[in-house]
Amino acid sequence: MKSPEKISEAVVRRLPIYLRYLLQLQSREIHTVSSQDLGTRLNLNPAQIRKDLAYFGDFGRKGIGYEVDYLIDKIRQILKLDRTVNVALIGAGNLGRALCNYTAYQSDRMKIVAVFDASPAKTGETISTLIVQPMEELSTTIGLKEVRIGIIAVPSAEAQQVADQFVAAGVEAILNFAPIILKVPETVRVHYADFTTELLSLAYYLE
Amino acid sequence: MKSPEKISEAVVRRLPIYLRYLLQLQSREIHTVSSQDLGTRLNLNPAQIRKDLAYFGDFGRKGIGYEVDYLIDKIRQILKLDRTVNVALIGAGNLGRALCNYTAYQSDRMKIVAVFDASPAKTGETISTLIVQPMEELSTTIGLKEVRIGIIAVPSAEAQQVADQFVAAGVEAILNFAPIILKVPETVRVHYADFTTELLSLAYYLE
Repeated sequence: MKSPEKISEAVVRRLPIYLRYLLQLQSREIHTVSSQDLGTRLNLNPAQIRKDLAYFGDFGRKGIGYEVDYLIDKIRQILKLDRTVNVALIGAGNLGRALCNYTAYQSDRMKIVAVFDASPAKTGETISTLIVQPMEELSTTIGLKEVRIGIIAVPSAEAQQVADQFVAAGVEAILNFAPIILKVPETVRVHYADFTTELLSLAYYLE
Repeated sequence: MKSPEKISEAVVRRLPIYLRYLLQLQSREIHTVSSQDLGTRLNLNPAQIRKDLAYFGDFGRKGIGYEVDYLIDKIRQILKLDRTVNVALIGAGNLGRALCNYTAYQSDRMKIVAVFDASPAKTGETISTLIVQPMEELSTTIGLKEVRIGIIAVPSAEAQQVADQFVAAGVEAILNFAPIILKVPETVRVHYADFTTELLSLAYYLE
């Protein structure tokens, strides 16, 4: 297995896609899968899949394929999802609610453990099993609940300020839904969940 | 200007990011911008930006930079956003509501003109200025309102069926929020707005 810094971003982004499908197979009690099956189902090149997975050691067996359970464990290890990672969310609007209720990733050991909103009208409300907290409690709660990832689901105008608060509270990584580029220290990794980019770029491909 | 099929996906995905920032500059009545400014603000390499923009013709002027208004028009033309593109949404849950209320892309000529939901409890509700319609009206409405792009914001288990209905109704492109890979004809382009992949891959970068 190569050292973590050698794994390309493209591979790291494909691993959750493999994982999700493998979990589907596991729930249907399917125990082995070939790179061909994975490729057809995920619209990826089977050779690419074999290369990605070989990167982390040789798991496939000729004529049998990959053992689903083993591969799930291995990908979780690689993604460091063999531990629980606590997540906090700022912004209890429709998007925030959708994210809290979205349970797909909770089975992958990612858990939203706290929700914050700047609006007094929102604090005290219940979303899923969580009570929306005021921003004043952010720092303490993030420390107490050992939150490592922050999700920003506030309007663009507030996103940078909210990111600063996450960083000050010790969050190590941010998923940003606001359509602006955030300024954060180099030690904090930011991923952008920017659906407007995906949507606008679709227009290009229309006739 | 090169022919459209020569523009790489990576470039097409960066153009909406440029456009959004240029629109911010325009609203602040800033008339010119350098590739350095763009690079700093968008966390992109200025040389990359110059290369991207030169792709479509030589707009920048040395020592002055790019004219904001002109660049906006040009990028809109390239992305084919100099016309209005009508969009329909299936799924009137929290995510669907968030998308309808999310006005950022409406200024870019993308407009959600219809919302559908399979649940009778949802139909008839108002979201933003739209009334949630039953699925039975999908085909007719898409024809009448000249919808070209469909957004899927339903649970995974229903996403493929909903995609089939969009395709049958004549939609040319799909933005899919459900965390599954869709099977569609080759003529229909699908983009994935898959925040769980972004979120899960963040775990890898934690210490």
